[in-house]
Amino acid sequence: MRQSVALHHASRLVNHGPTVLVTTQHEGRRNIMAAAWSMPVEFTPPRIAIVIDKKTFTSDLLKASGRFAISLPVPALADVTYRVGNESGRDVDEGGDDKFARHGIATFAGPELGLPLVDGCCAWLELRRIAEPHSEDAYDTVFGEVVSAQADDRVFTQGRWSFRDDNAALHTLHHLGGGAFAVPSRVVQGRLLAGP
Amino acid sequence: MRQSVALHHASRLVNHGPTVLVTTQHEGRRNIMAAAWSMPVEFTPPRIAIVIDKKTFTSDLLKASGRFAISLPVPALADVTYRVGNESGRDVDEGGDDKFARHGIATFAGPELGLPLVDGCCAWLELRRIAEPHSEDAYDTVFGEVVSAQADDRVFTQGRWSFRDDNAALHTLHHLGGGAFAVPSRVVQGRLLAGP
Repeated sequence: MRQSVALHHASRLVNHGPTVLVTTQHEGRRNIMAAAWSMPVEFTPPRIAIVIDKKTFTSDLLKASGRFAISLPVPALADVTYRVGNESGRDVDEGGDDKFARHGIATFAGPELGLPLVDGCCAWLELRRIAEPHSEDAYDTVFGEVVSAQADDRVFTQGRWSFRDDNAALHTLHHLGGGAFAVPSRVVQGRLLAGP
Repeated sequence: MRQSVALHHASRLVNHGPTVLVTTQHEGRRNIMAAAWSMPVEFTPPRIAIVIDKKTFTSDLLKASGRFAISLPVPALADVTYRVGNESGRDVDEGGDDKFARHGIATFAGPELGLPLVDGCCAWLELRRIAEPHSEDAYDTVFGEVVSAQADDRVFTQGRWSFRDDNAALHTLHHLGGGAFAVPSRVVQGRLLAGP
Protein backbone atom coordinates (compact mmCIF):
# COMPACT_ATOMS: atom_id res chain seq x y z
CA MET A 1 0.00 0.00 0.00
CA ARG A 2 1.27 3.49 -0.84
CA GLN A 3 2.51 5.42 2.19
CA SER A 4 4.33 8.70 2.74
CA VAL A 5 8.08 8.48 3.33
CA ALA A 6 9.75 11.00 5.66
CA LEU A 7 11.79 13.43 3.58
CA HIS A 8 15.02 12.60 5.42
CA HIS A 9 14.59 9.02 4.17
CA ALA A 10 13.80 10.02 0.59
CA SER A 11 17.36 9.65 -0.74
CA ARG A 12 17.33 6.02 0.44
CA LEU A 13 14.76 5.28 -2.25
CA VAL A 14 17.37 5.80 -4.97
CA ASN A 15 20.48 4.92 -2.93
CA HIS A 16 20.92 1.55 -4.66
CA GLY A 17 20.86 2.84 -8.23
CA PRO A 18 17.44 1.97 -9.69
CA THR A 19 16.32 2.99 -13.16
CA VAL A 20 13.48 5.51 -12.85
CA LEU A 21 10.60 6.89 -14.85
CA VAL A 22 10.74 10.69 -15.09
CA THR A 23 7.45 12.52 -15.52
CA THR A 24 6.90 16.18 -16.30
CA GLN A 25 3.92 18.45 -16.94
CA HIS A 26 3.58 22.04 -18.12
CA GLU A 27 0.65 24.03 -19.48
CA GLY A 28 -1.46 21.03 -20.37
CA ARG A 29 1.35 18.94 -21.84
CA ARG A 30 2.99 16.05 -20.05
CA ASN A 31 5.67 13.49 -20.77
CA ILE A 32 7.37 10.39 -19.45
CA MET A 33 10.85 8.98 -20.09
CA ALA A 34 13.15 6.43 -18.49
CA ALA A 35 16.44 7.40 -16.87
CA ALA A 36 19.06 4.93 -15.72
CA TRP A 37 21.44 7.60 -14.48
CA SER A 38 20.54 9.23 -11.19
CA MET A 39 21.94 9.37 -7.65
CA PRO A 40 21.30 11.09 -4.33
CA VAL A 41 23.68 13.94 -3.51
CA GLU A 42 22.38 14.77 -0.01
CA PHE A 43 20.13 13.26 2.66
CA THR A 44 19.05 16.50 4.35
CA PRO A 45 17.77 18.39 2.50
CA PRO A 46 16.98 15.45 0.22
CA ARG A 47 18.58 16.20 -3.14
CA ILE A 48 19.34 14.11 -6.16
CA ALA A 49 21.18 14.48 -9.46
CA ILE A 50 19.79 12.94 -12.64
CA VAL A 51 20.98 12.90 -16.23
CA ILE A 52 18.35 14.18 -18.66
CA ASP A 53 19.51 14.86 -22.21
CA LYS A 54 18.97 18.54 -22.90
CA LYS A 55 17.53 17.73 -26.34
CA THR A 56 14.56 15.81 -24.87
CA PHE A 57 10.98 16.98 -24.50
CA THR A 58 11.26 16.05 -20.81
CA SER A 59 14.09 18.59 -20.47
CA ASP A 60 11.92 21.29 -22.10
CA LEU A 61 8.99 20.65 -19.75
CA LEU A 62 11.26 20.33 -16.72
CA LYS A 63 12.96 23.66 -17.35
CA ALA A 64 9.70 25.45 -18.22
CA SER A 65 7.89 24.21 -15.10
CA GLY A 66 10.84 23.91 -12.69
CA ARG A 67 9.45 20.56 -11.54
CA PHE A 68 9.71 16.87 -12.21
CA ALA A 69 8.73 13.58 -10.65
CA ILE A 70 10.28 10.14 -10.40
CA SER A 71 8.50 6.78 -10.19
CA LEU A 72 10.43 3.54 -9.60
CA PRO A 73 9.25 0.79 -11.95
CA VAL A 74 8.97 -2.89 -11.00
CA PRO A 75 9.52 -6.02 -13.13
CA ALA A 76 5.99 -5.95 -14.61
CA LEU A 77 6.83 -2.51 -16.04
CA ALA A 78 10.08 -3.58 -17.74
CA ASP A 79 8.54 -3.39 -21.24
CA VAL A 80 7.03 0.05 -20.63
CA THR A 81 10.28 1.31 -19.10
CA TYR A 82 12.30 0.12 -22.08
CA ARG A 83 9.79 1.62 -24.52
CA VAL A 84 9.49 5.11 -23.02
CA GLY A 85 13.26 5.28 -22.87
CA ASN A 86 13.39 4.77 -26.63
CA GLU A 87 10.96 7.32 -28.11
CA SER A 88 10.31 11.03 -27.87
CA GLY A 89 7.11 12.54 -26.51
CA ARG A 90 7.73 15.73 -28.44
CA ASP A 91 5.38 14.72 -31.23
CA VAL A 92 2.00 13.61 -30.01
CA ASP A 93 0.09 11.20 -32.22
CA GLU A 94 -2.37 12.56 -34.78
CA GLY A 95 -5.10 11.53 -32.40
CA GLY A 96 -3.46 13.70 -29.75
CA ASP A 97 -2.15 10.78 -27.74
CA ASP A 98 0.89 11.42 -25.60
CA LYS A 99 3.19 8.63 -24.40
CA PHE A 100 0.95 7.85 -21.43
CA ALA A 101 -2.12 7.33 -23.63
CA ARG A 102 -0.14 5.55 -26.33
CA HIS A 103 1.08 2.87 -23.94
CA GLY A 104 -1.82 2.80 -21.49
CA ILE A 105 0.24 4.18 -18.61
CA ALA A 106 -2.05 5.08 -15.71
CA THR A 107 -1.08 7.82 -13.27
CA PHE A 108 -2.21 9.54 -10.10
CA ALA A 109 -1.47 13.09 -8.95
CA GLY A 110 1.50 13.77 -6.69
CA PRO A 111 0.57 15.16 -3.27
CA GLU A 112 2.72 18.32 -3.35
CA LEU A 113 3.06 19.37 -6.96
CA GLY A 114 0.25 17.46 -8.66
CA LEU A 115 2.66 15.86 -11.11
CA PRO A 116 1.67 12.56 -12.78
CA LEU A 117 3.06 9.59 -10.83
CA VAL A 118 2.98 6.14 -12.43
CA ASP A 119 0.56 3.53 -11.12
CA GLY A 120 2.01 0.15 -10.18
CA CYS A 121 5.47 1.44 -9.27
CA CYS A 122 7.07 0.85 -5.85
CA ALA A 123 8.15 4.40 -4.95
CA TRP A 124 7.49 7.97 -6.06
CA LEU A 125 9.23 11.33 -5.59
CA GLU A 126 8.28 14.87 -6.59
CA LEU A 127 11.12 17.35 -7.00
CA ARG A 128 11.76 21.00 -7.64
CA ARG A 129 14.58 21.72 -10.04
CA ILE A 130 17.59 23.49 -8.58
CA ALA A 131 18.73 25.68 -11.47
CA GLU A 132 22.32 24.76 -12.33
CA PRO A 133 22.69 25.84 -15.95
CA HIS A 134 26.35 24.84 -16.24
CA SER A 135 25.87 21.25 -15.02
CA GLU A 136 22.77 20.92 -17.19
CA ASP A 137 24.61 22.23 -20.22
CA ALA A 138 27.96 20.48 -19.79
CA TYR A 139 26.82 17.12 -18.36
CA ASP A 140 23.02 16.97 -18.86
CA THR A 141 23.00 16.72 -15.07
CA VAL A 142 19.95 18.20 -13.37
CA PHE A 143 19.86 18.73 -9.61
CA GLY A 144 16.56 18.57 -7.77
CA GLU A 145 15.21 18.80 -4.24
CA VAL A 146 12.66 16.24 -3.14
CA VAL A 147 9.41 17.77 -1.87
CA SER A 148 7.33 14.60 -1.55
CA ALA A 149 8.21 10.93 -1.20
CA GLN A 150 6.05 7.84 -1.12
CA ALA A 151 6.69 4.10 -1.29
CA ASP A 152 4.80 0.84 -1.18
CA ASP A 153 5.03 -0.30 2.43
CA ARG A 154 5.21 -3.93 1.41
CA VAL A 155 8.78 -3.31 0.23
CA PHE A 156 9.97 -0.07 1.93
CA THR A 157 9.32 0.49 5.65
CA GLN A 158 10.92 2.57 8.38
CA GLY A 159 13.24 4.21 5.92
CA ARG A 160 14.59 0.97 4.43
CA TRP A 161 14.10 -1.26 1.43
CA SER A 162 13.23 -4.84 2.37
CA PHE A 163 13.67 -7.00 -0.73
CA ARG A 164 12.32 -10.49 -0.04
CA ASP A 165 11.05 -13.45 -2.00
CA ASP A 166 7.47 -12.68 -1.02
CA ASN A 167 7.58 -9.15 -2.48
CA ALA A 168 9.64 -9.87 -5.61
CA ALA A 169 6.99 -8.23 -7.80
CA LEU A 170 7.82 -4.92 -6.10
CA HIS A 171 11.58 -4.96 -6.55
CA THR A 172 13.35 -2.21 -8.47
CA LEU A 173 14.89 -2.39 -11.97
CA HIS A 174 18.54 -1.61 -12.72
CA HIS A 175 19.31 -1.20 -16.41
CA LEU A 176 22.17 -3.27 -17.81
CA GLY A 177 21.67 -2.12 -21.43
CA GLY A 178 19.44 -3.22 -24.30
CA GLY A 179 16.33 -3.54 -22.14
CA ALA A 180 17.87 -6.07 -19.74
CA PHE A 181 17.25 -5.08 -16.14
CA ALA A 182 18.90 -6.57 -13.06
CA VAL A 183 16.63 -6.97 -10.06
CA PRO A 184 18.21 -6.68 -6.58
CA SER A 185 16.56 -9.78 -5.15
CA ARG A 186 19.41 -11.06 -2.99
CA VAL A 187 20.58 -9.17 0.09
CA VAL A 188 23.97 -9.46 1.81
CA GLN A 189 24.49 -7.98 5.28
CA GLY A 190 27.95 -6.53 5.85
CA ARG A 191 29.35 -6.79 9.37
CA LEU A 192 31.14 -3.77 10.77
CA LEU A 193 34.71 -5.01 11.21
CA ALA A 194 36.81 -3.67 14.07
CA GLY A 195 37.90 -0.11 13.38
CA PRO A 196 41.08 1.75 14.28
CA MET B 1 39.88 -13.23 -15.42
CA ARG B 2 40.63 -9.51 -15.60
CA GLN B 3 40.33 -8.05 -19.09
CA SER B 4 40.39 -4.58 -20.61
CA VAL B 5 37.02 -3.01 -21.39
CA ALA B 6 36.70 -0.68 -24.37
CA LEU B 7 36.32 2.89 -23.13
CA HIS B 8 32.99 3.37 -24.92
CA HIS B 9 31.64 0.53 -22.77
CA ALA B 10 33.08 1.86 -19.51
CA SER B 11 29.92 3.69 -18.40
CA ARG B 12 28.02 0.40 -18.60
CA LEU B 13 30.05 -0.83 -15.65
CA VAL B 14 28.26 1.59 -13.32
CA ASN B 15 25.01 1.93 -15.30
CA HIS B 16 23.03 -0.17 -12.81
CA GLY B 17 23.99 1.77 -9.69
CA PRO B 18 26.58 -0.29 -7.82
CA THR B 19 28.31 0.84 -4.66
CA VAL B 20 31.99 1.40 -5.40
CA LEU B 21 35.33 1.59 -3.61
CA VAL B 22 37.15 4.84 -4.36
CA THR B 23 40.93 4.80 -4.17
CA THR B 24 43.32 7.73 -4.31
CA GLN B 25 47.07 8.24 -4.06
CA HIS B 26 49.26 11.32 -3.83
CA GLU B 27 52.88 11.84 -2.82
CA GLY B 28 53.24 8.53 -1.04
CA ARG B 29 49.88 8.58 0.72
CA ARG B 30 46.87 6.59 -0.38
CA ASN B 31 43.33 6.02 0.78
CA ILE B 32 40.20 3.99 0.17
CA MET B 33 36.55 4.76 0.90
CA ALA B 34 33.18 3.41 -0.17
CA ALA B 35 30.71 5.49 -2.21
CA ALA B 36 27.11 4.49 -2.86
CA TRP B 37 26.36 7.58 -4.90
CA SER B 38 27.70 7.62 -8.44
CA MET B 39 26.35 7.54 -11.97
CA PRO B 40 27.51 7.79 -15.56
CA VAL B 41 26.85 11.13 -17.24
CA GLU B 42 28.13 10.28 -20.74
CA PHE B 43 29.12 7.22 -22.78
CA THR B 44 31.57 8.91 -25.16
CA PRO B 45 33.76 10.29 -23.76
CA PRO B 46 33.11 8.05 -20.77
CA ARG B 47 32.35 10.30 -17.83
CA ILE B 48 30.86 9.75 -14.43
CA ALA B 49 29.70 11.82 -11.48
CA ILE B 50 30.34 10.67 -7.93
CA VAL B 51 29.55 12.15 -4.54
CA ILE B 52 32.63 12.50 -2.34
CA ASP B 53 32.24 14.53 0.83
CA LYS B 54 34.62 17.47 0.60
CA LYS B 55 35.68 16.93 4.22
CA THR B 56 37.15 13.50 3.50
CA PHE B 57 40.80 12.55 3.09
CA THR B 58 39.81 10.98 -0.23
CA SER B 59 38.65 14.41 -1.40
CA ASP B 60 41.99 15.95 -0.37
CA LEU B 61 44.02 13.35 -2.27
CA LEU B 62 41.70 13.48 -5.28
CA LYS B 63 41.98 17.23 -5.63
CA ALA B 64 45.73 17.27 -5.01
CA SER B 65 46.43 14.55 -7.59
CA GLY B 66 43.58 15.18 -10.04
CA ARG B 67 43.01 11.42 -10.21
CA PHE B 68 40.95 8.68 -8.62
CA ALA B 69 40.02 5.08 -9.23
CA ILE B 70 36.93 2.97 -8.72
CA SER B 71 36.75 -0.74 -7.92
CA LEU B 72 33.41 -2.59 -7.82
CA PRO B 73 33.19 -4.86 -4.76
CA VAL B 74 31.49 -8.26 -4.73
CA PRO B 75 29.59 -10.04 -1.91
CA ALA B 76 32.77 -11.40 -0.25
CA LEU B 77 33.88 -7.76 0.18
CA ALA B 78 30.67 -6.57 1.88
CA ASP B 79 32.34 -6.31 5.31
CA VAL B 80 35.33 -4.39 3.96
CA THR B 81 33.07 -2.09 1.93
CA TYR B 82 30.95 -1.30 4.97
CA ARG B 83 34.04 -0.72 7.11
CA VAL B 84 35.96 1.62 4.80
CA GLY B 85 32.79 3.65 4.35
CA ASN B 86 32.69 4.26 8.10
CA GLU B 87 36.16 5.48 9.05
CA SER B 88 38.59 8.14 7.93
CA GLY B 89 41.99 7.43 6.46
CA ARG B 90 43.24 10.87 7.45
CA ASP B 91 44.95 9.54 10.54
CA VAL B 92 47.19 6.58 9.91
CA ASP B 93 47.77 4.21 12.79
CA GLU B 94 50.75 4.71 15.11
CA GLY B 95 52.43 1.88 13.27
CA GLY B 96 51.93 3.83 10.03
CA ASP B 97 49.17 1.58 8.73
CA ASP B 98 46.73 3.13 6.30
CA LYS B 99 43.25 1.70 5.69
CA PHE B 100 44.57 -0.84 3.18
CA ALA B 101 47.08 -2.28 5.65
CA ARG B 102 44.68 -2.06 8.55
CA HIS B 103 42.10 -4.25 6.84
CA GLY B 104 44.38 -6.39 4.71
CA ILE B 105 43.12 -4.94 1.42
CA ALA B 106 45.34 -6.10 -1.44
CA THR B 107 45.71 -3.98 -4.55
CA PHE B 108 47.33 -3.93 -7.96
CA ALA B 109 48.42 -0.93 -10.02
CA GLY B 110 46.06 0.58 -12.60
CA PRO B 111 47.33 0.38 -16.18
CA GLU B 112 47.08 4.09 -17.07
CA LEU B 113 47.58 6.04 -13.86
CA GLY B 114 49.13 3.47 -11.55
CA LEU B 115 46.42 3.99 -8.94
CA PRO B 116 45.73 1.20 -6.43
CA LEU B 117 42.88 -1.04 -7.64
CA VAL B 118 41.32 -3.51 -5.22
CA ASP B 119 41.99 -7.22 -5.64
CA GLY B 120 38.98 -9.50 -5.80
CA CYS B 121 36.59 -6.93 -7.24
CA CYS B 122 34.67 -7.46 -10.51
CA ALA B 123 35.47 -4.20 -12.35
CA TRP B 124 37.93 -1.34 -12.14
CA LEU B 125 38.10 2.19 -13.57
CA GLU B 126 40.78 4.87 -13.45
CA LEU B 127 39.63 8.46 -13.88
CA ARG B 128 40.96 11.96 -14.25
CA ARG B 129 39.08 14.60 -12.29
CA ILE B 130 37.29 17.22 -14.37
CA ALA B 131 37.61 20.32 -12.22
CA GLU B 132 34.13 21.60 -11.41
CA PRO B 133 34.62 23.60 -8.22
CA HIS B 134 30.99 24.71 -7.96
CA SER B 135 29.49 21.20 -8.17
CA GLU B 136 32.13 19.91 -5.78
CA ASP B 137 31.45 22.69 -3.32
CA ALA B 138 27.64 22.84 -3.52
CA TYR B 139 26.83 19.14 -3.97
CA ASP B 140 30.05 17.21 -3.18
CA THR B 141 29.66 16.03 -6.77
CA VAL B 142 32.91 15.26 -8.58
CA PHE B 143 32.99 14.70 -12.33
CA GLY B 144 35.60 12.42 -13.82
CA GLU B 145 36.63 11.04 -17.19
CA VAL B 146 37.47 7.36 -17.43
CA VAL B 147 40.94 6.65 -18.80
CA SER B 148 41.11 2.91 -18.17
CA ALA B 149 38.47 0.23 -17.64
CA GLN B 150 38.75 -3.43 -16.78
CA ALA B 151 36.32 -6.13 -15.72
CA ASP B 152 36.28 -9.81 -14.84
CA ASP B 153 35.26 -11.55 -18.05
CA ARG B 154 33.32 -14.20 -16.15
CA VAL B 155 30.65 -11.57 -15.42
CA PHE B 156 31.17 -8.74 -17.98
CA THR B 157 31.74 -9.55 -21.64
CA GLN B 158 31.22 -7.72 -24.92
CA GLY B 159 30.21 -4.55 -23.14
CA ARG B 160 27.53 -6.16 -20.98
CA TRP B 161 27.04 -7.50 -17.49
CA SER B 162 25.91 -11.11 -17.41
CA PHE B 163 24.65 -11.88 -13.91
CA ARG B 164 23.99 -15.61 -13.60
CA ASP B 165 23.72 -18.19 -10.84
CA ASP B 166 27.11 -19.64 -11.75
CA ASN B 167 28.92 -16.30 -11.26
CA ALA B 168 27.01 -15.05 -8.19
CA ALA B 169 30.27 -14.50 -6.31
CA LEU B 170 31.12 -11.77 -8.86
CA HIS B 171 27.89 -9.78 -8.69
CA THR B 172 27.89 -6.12 -7.64
CA LEU B 173 26.73 -4.62 -4.33
CA HIS B 174 24.05 -1.93 -4.06
CA HIS B 175 23.85 -0.27 -0.66
CA LEU B 176 20.45 -0.18 1.01
CA GLY B 177 21.71 1.44 4.23
CA GLY B 178 23.27 0.14 7.46
CA GLY B 179 25.63 -2.24 5.68
CA ALA B 180 22.88 -4.15 3.88
CA PHE B 181 23.64 -4.57 0.20
CA ALA B 182 21.26 -5.73 -2.50
CA VAL B 183 22.78 -7.99 -5.15
CA PRO B 184 21.32 -7.83 -8.68
CA SER B 185 21.08 -11.58 -9.15
CA ARG B 186 17.82 -11.75 -11.10
CA VAL B 187 17.55 -10.38 -14.64
CA VAL B 188 14.37 -9.34 -16.46
CA GLN B 189 14.43 -8.73 -20.22
CA GLY B 190 12.14 -5.95 -21.39
CA ARG B 191 10.56 -6.34 -24.83
CA LEU B 192 10.46 -3.29 -27.07
CA LEU B 193 6.72 -2.62 -27.42
CA ALA B 194 5.40 -1.18 -30.68
CA GLY B 195 6.35 2.48 -30.99
CA PRO B 196 4.51 5.40 -32.57
